[in-house]
Amino acid sequence: MTQHQPDAERPEAEEAAGRSGAPAERGRGLSRRGVLGLAGATVGAGLVGFGAGMAVDRAVAGGSPDSATYPFYGTHQAGITTPAQDRLHFAAFDAAPGLDRDGLIELLHDWTVAAARMTQGRPAGKYGPASGPSDAPPDDTGEALDLPPGGLTLTFGFGPTLFRAADGTDRFGIASRRPEALVDLPRFAGDALVPAISGGDLCVQACSDDPQVAVHAIRNLSRIAFGRASIRWSQLGFGRTSSTSRSQTTPRNLFGFKDGTANIKSEDQSVVEDQVWASAGDGAGWMAGGSYLVARKIRMVIETWDRQQLGEQERIIGRDKGEGAPLSGGTEFTEPNFLAVAKDGGTKIDPDSHVRLAHPSVNGGAQLLRRGYNFVDGNDELGRLNAGLFFIAFQRDPRTQFIPIQRRLATNDLMNEYVRHVGSGVFAVPPGATEGSYVGAGLFA
Amino acid sequence: MTQHQPDAERPEAEEAAGRSGAPAERGRGLSRRGVLGLAGATVGAGLVGFGAGMAVDRAVAGGSPDSATYPFYGTHQAGITTPAQDRLHFAAFDAAPGLDRDGLIELLHDWTVAAARMTQGRPAGKYGPASGPSDAPPDDTGEALDLPPGGLTLTFGFGPTLFRAADGTDRFGIASRRPEALVDLPRFAGDALVPAISGGDLCVQACSDDPQVAVHAIRNLSRIAFGRASIRWSQLGFGRTSSTSRSQTTPRNLFGFKDGTANIKSEDQSVVEDQVWASAGDGAGWMAGGSYLVARKIRMVIETWDRQQLGEQERIIGRDKGEGAPLSGGTEFTEPNFLAVAKDGGTKIDPDSHVRLAHPSVNGGAQLLRRGYNFVDGNDELGRLNAGLFFIAFQRDPRTQFIPIQRRLATNDLMNEYVRHVGSGVFAVPPGATEGSYVGAGLFA
Repeated sequence: MTQHQPDAERPEAEEAAGRSGAPAERGRGLSRRGVLGLAGATVGAGLVGFGAGMAVDRAVAGGSPDSATYPFYGTHQAGITTPAQDRLHFAAFDAAPGLDRDGLIELLHDWTVAAARMTQGRPAGKYGPASGPSDAPPDDTGEALDLPPGGLTLTFGFGPTLFRAADGTDRFGIASRRPEALVDLPRFAGDALVPAISGGDLCVQACSDDPQVAVHAIRNLSRIAFGRASIRWSQLGFGRTSSTSRSQTTPRNLFGFKDGTANIKSEDQSVVEDQVWASAGDGAGWMAGGSYLVARKIRMVIETWDRQQLGEQERIIGRDKGEGAPLSGGTEFTEPNFLAVAKDGGTKIDPDSHVRLAHPSVNGGAQLLRRGYNFVDGNDELGRLNAGLFFIAFQRDPRTQFIPIQRRLATNDLMNEYVRHVGSGVFAVPPGATEGSYVGAGLFA
Repeated sequence: MTQHQPDAERPEAEEAAGRSGAPAERGRGLSRRGVLGLAGATVGAGLVGFGAGMAVDRAVAGGSPDSATYPFYGTHQAGITTPAQDRLHFAAFDAAPGLDRDGLIELLHDWTVAAARMTQGRPAGKYGPASGPSDAPPDDTGEALDLPPGGLTLTFGFGPTLFRAADGTDRFGIASRRPEALVDLPRFAGDALVPAISGGDLCVQACSDDPQVAVHAIRNLSRIAFGRASIRWSQLGFGRTSSTSRSQTTPRNLFGFKDGTANIKSEDQSVVEDQVWASAGDGAGWMAGGSYLVARKIRMVIETWDRQQLGEQERIIGRDKGEGAPLSGGTEFTEPNFLAVAKDGGTKIDPDSHVRLAHPSVNGGAQLLRRGYNFVDGNDELGRLNAGLFFIAFQRDPRTQFIPIQRRLATNDLMNEYVRHVGSGVFAVPPGATEGSYVGAGLFA
């Protein structure tokens, strides 16, 4: 039925060709290992300048953005300080009822192997989608076969329920190793959380400039997890709303405003060390070099927003809409002056504006590294787009960062009239894996 | 509250700068009219080689794909033979209960003006998102302010219920002008249609290489329609599954197979004339130069598919997975030989394979111009991705094209075990509008 023969015996060099190993190319005898090897070397060279585990500049990693690849193994997981890719597929998984400690470790090992392959532009499994035995299911689903990875990163996290299930059981013998920073998020004013799109034992954040590559990755990780874990909820994001590098332009959210101007940038090494990476002294030693991910699905009532006056929109945000400058004056990157006085005697920036309440100066210096995405999930029965911001933030400790900031916003932010938090999750994101080991190995050591 | 002043009096040249008119750029005194004018001239020159209303080659329209623009006005609507863009936002609208004939005409006029602007990279309205009066809502929502149009096309269609409502009323005095070709689709074997994601009085297909631009367009058309029409259902597609030009590579669907190899290509002028465009002799004269759009939301049971043997997957499709060649041999673009005999005495291509049942040779020569997209809408309660193909096809007459082809597929296609049609729509897509007029004017003449 097929021209493909089982090729378990074909040389490892051909296997390494991976996603590029379409018959036509293989027929020409093209050796891709050399090409990939060279790219790898370039990436390695780039890393020297950035420090291990840091994001690799795209210009270094490849000729075009689509061909960017980031190392999977390293001090930190990729997908945190990596320049935010354009598209997202995020999935929260629940462990299957029968899964035990060994099964969980095996799953994390299998995910690690597949993730390391896919992020380098190779199929999820050894045979790929079209080169394995005819009488077995392919070990890659194929829709990314001809696509460059587009900077794909896969970032794994552990939810509170992995450490202790809702019924109190310690399924995996790790309850005592739960980091203190991995708290259950409190209820915030106005929360309208839907349990079906909140929580999860595990999470995977897939980011790529090509949405098909991100979807392919989540789908294959879900396929690999079959019988061991299944998707609890998932979310596609079509447009990034944050920059994580000074090399990126500031994108716009669905309020039409620039978002993430004041985000932590990967170039700010000391801020990253201070606010993003957990350290050995923080408590759970196995989390050193890791981070904590908070996800919030924030529905925006865009139809109401769209009927609001321009001046009122700008008052709520605290910035002007075109340039993104603070209403105290200047340009996008001018620091806001919350004391600047307007003609009417009030401050030029409303004290309850979003820009002020989210600013480090009113949050004891606390910041977040945000990697959010715009989403549209069809529409509701009234014809309103089910649209908004899928907020993702990384931080060293949610107790001193996301939680107090969000408490302040949830109570006072003028923007609250136009947003509703409908989904939520918090996950401990372990440090990067070492080649030959697996993501989160320290938790089970 | 804002630095922006009402600028109703600013010169038309500045207004024409449109989306590019961010304060920083305007501050530098950059005249964008010249740039846009030049691009327009180039497009015009390109059109001479293609014939009016034909797709404009991207290399002609702009230096990079992102900057591609296609003319809105012309013999045919853009977005049909235009090289299929990477991303989709499709929306079906229902007219508001109180809308009358004049109101409908006014809506179509307003949509035309906004669509003509947005497809050229300008804001939906004259003031744009950030340059209008502070005490009025902006006439563009802003999230595409800094983005090139990415080849944005907006294609409008009229559903059967526009001509006569479900309750039999002729709300707009157009019942007698309903084209015979605009039939209600019959029920096909296996259909599992959900009314809430089927039908609609009007439709808009927004395609762009940038999803934020496509979403922005639908959102602004919905905003403009406020009180006159509202979204009945909408669909995002993240990856195109068809090529409509020989200049494009063949993409893959979520079965992991190349899709659209045998699609109608815009370069095949005689096939396009014969199979895509309605002509004056077909019946409804106002539809000459128009086409008929069939949309089907096809859920794929990808988890079951992923556990199927590679050989069986290839038997179902009738092509090999890697190259996309027919199982009778050759390469992707080799014509399938349905008579080629395999070693076991049967045909190399299964008679019930998808490639055979969809082939013109078993459909009396009927073909479709397909512009489908892969979608993922989260997941179901069992953790299975709610994923599949949002099928869109254009044709001269659904009675002789989509309907008989789909009847054959719905009855016999081996693929049926893995797909479920859950949404459906059929729309008459009028010819292109003339500048100064509006889309569908012929229907009301």
